[in-house]
Amino acid sequence: MSDTTDTQGSWLSDDDIATMRGKMPVVYINAIPVLTDDLGIVTHIGLLLRLGADGDVNREIVSGRILYGERVRDALLRHLEKDLGPLALPQIPASPQPFTVVEYFPNPDITGFYDPRQHAVSLAYIVPVDGDCEPSQDALDLVWLRPDEVTSPTVAAELSPGHEKLVRRALAHVGRLP
Amino acid sequence: MSDTTDTQGSWLSDDDIATMRGKMPVVYINAIPVLTDDLGIVTHIGLLLRLGADGDVNREIVSGRILYGERVRDALLRHLEKDLGPLALPQIPASPQPFTVVEYFPNPDITGFYDPRQHAVSLAYIVPVDGDCEPSQDALDLVWLRPDEVTSPTVAAELSPGHEKLVRRALAHVGRLP
Amino acid sequence: MSDTTDTQGSWLSDDDIATMRGKMPVVYINAIPVLTDDLGIVTHIGLLLRLGADGDVNREIVSGRILYGERVRDALLRHLEKDLGPLALPQIPASPQPFTVVEYFPNPDITGFYDPRQHAVSLAYIVPVDGDCEPSQDALDLVWLRPDEVTSPTVAAELSPGHEKLVRRALAHVGRLP
Amino acid sequence: MSDTTDTQGSWLSDDDIATMRGKMPVVYINAIPVLTDDLGIVTHIGLLLRLGADGDVNREIVSGRILYGERVRDALLRHLEKDLGPLALPQIPASPQPFTVVEYFPNPDITGFYDPRQHAVSLAYIVPVDGDCEPSQDALDLVWLRPDEVTSPTVAAELSPGHEKLVRRALAHVGRLP
Repeated sequence: MSDTTDTQGSWLSDDDIATMRGKMPVVYINAIPVLTDDLGIVTHIGLLLRLGADGDVNREIVSGRILYGERVRDALLRHLEKDLGPLALPQIPASPQPFTVVEYFPNPDITGFYDPRQHAVSLAYIVPVDGDCEPSQDALDLVWLRPDEVTSPTVAAELSPGHEKLVRRALAHVGRLP
Repeated sequence: MSDTTDTQGSWLSDDDIATMRGKMPVVYINAIPVLTDDLGIVTHIGLLLRLGADGDVNREIVSGRILYGERVRDALLRHLEKDLGPLALPQIPASPQPFTVVEYFPNPDITGFYDPRQHAVSLAYIVPVDGDCEPSQDALDLVWLRPDEVTSPTVAAELSPGHEKLVRRALAHVGRLP
Repeated sequence: MSDTTDTQGSWLSDDDIATMRGKMPVVYINAIPVLTDDLGIVTHIGLLLRLGADGDVNREIVSGRILYGERVRDALLRHLEKDLGPLALPQIPASPQPFTVVEYFPNPDITGFYDPRQHAVSLAYIVPVDGDCEPSQDALDLVWLRPDEVTSPTVAAELSPGHEKLVRRALAHVGRLP
Repeated sequence: MSDTTDTQGSWLSDDDIATMRGKMPVVYINAIPVLTDDLGIVTHIGLLLRLGADGDVNREIVSGRILYGERVRDALLRHLEKDLGPLALPQIPASPQPFTVVEYFPNPDITGFYDPRQHAVSLAYIVPVDGDCEPSQDALDLVWLRPDEVTSPTVAAELSPGHEKLVRRALAHVGRLP
């Protein structure tokens, strides 16, 4: 999970974050950007291309921390606008119910979702976007792939492991898992 | 539940429908049209004003039969366009999962949802609309009410009883039940 | 989908059913029987071994028609007891919301879920069972398989195609899709 | 929200908790204990009677913090056993998807859910219990009330305000909101 830019908008210093990450779970959102047709059928999933800390290039979905004082919806909109640009017009869900909850641990064996830095509890939402998307900030690119493309071995291998599983859960939820 | 116009698009005569309604459950959709703000918060619910068979004026949400050969999404779009006009631009949900299922019976004691004509199983969805709505066909009017207005005793009394309960379930699902 | 025994409990002759199946959608339930541990984690999926109309042996989950006058819950309990025996003690879900809806068509291209006999709309539920299961009636056997076993190519090939996809959707919903 | 006993099992001093509560959202679970009949219909909701910090007696549902290193399921089981006793046999949900998410803020105007101490994000689950419940620790009593009782003005007034709204959302989700 990447939240390079989170500290800009938060009331926490980097030291504070480092301290807390070792002491309590951190709340995240995950958003899977999708394109839909007139009948609501998901035709494409949006994946960000990002340079990892290790110099590798990874495909990712939108993810980031919920800040103190911020609602889940505020966090969804902020991270989607940060990653897809200000004209993406994301349709933030009417219901607060996430389609799944993902738990990342420093120990990879607990849930299979691994984050060496922290214990994170992430609420995951599927978000149709209507507008013009452009990768912003630290993302190198944004590609829209069909369900069969996003689950192909090639693309799956480029997704960060947790995101690969999460994307398949999302496709299952919208009835589009190949 | 009203589906006066269904027979136009179906392969069933009125006689056929009458016969089957006494022999097997009929599949319906219910759609609750909503307006949302940029954060996805439901601000208004759309209610149709319709002349009932008994001459009474009732407030209703969108409902109708799923036809043979029609997907749930096709039925949602057809009934929403029929009731809200062709420019309503409804955002049909990406997921086939309804937020609830309502079961209407000729016996009012089984579930509390009553339909003297038939046993109906209805899949209910919340549908944000973006465009210009105009009541069409047999609807007299369409009004947009806030959650506190739609659950007020006055409006609740004007809603057909099943729809009143269904609207409150929808408001609970989107976190807006007063 | 198999509902060989449905007519015993219904008010329809075989002729009636045949007629109606060509004229309106038929409502079904699908139930995925699961074993869970004390923390609710799904450890095993229950699959029935059944002799198909073509003489083939297929693995299947529980499925069957909702009868006239029957609630979704009644249909779930009836079909689960019919297939798993009277001592299975299924935990019928508290919420009427299915985890997904599957639409079967005589035309295999519409949704990818195919039923040559009819257009069926099926509400799918995950049902933990607590008690002693024994395959009854027309089922040859009942096996409990781990998530990695049930999604293995060997088992997937033995599942009827629609059920294979549905089982993966169920595993995704409970966070156990490998 | 009450989590008087949380610190016993955590790696945080009271000072640490106080510091963090002012700096980042804290993750909670809410569990609504229910009794169901053989068909899964919710017949009763379990409410704890608890002495509030102000000396008032309040009715509450189960709630508490998710600790560092703990899964959502572990937290659900721990808090349910803490409040209902070790023989309650709660049926922890198979799916990680909560039926709703509630956000508590020190500012009562943001979501209507108020917690003067902290910004809490709470995942809410409905949990059928099978066994013998006995209020433990700081709970004075545990009562089981029917849906019409729990939503009566008398009981609603005794529930802490956030819990009253959450219980009605839960009843709506299981199709039992009067």
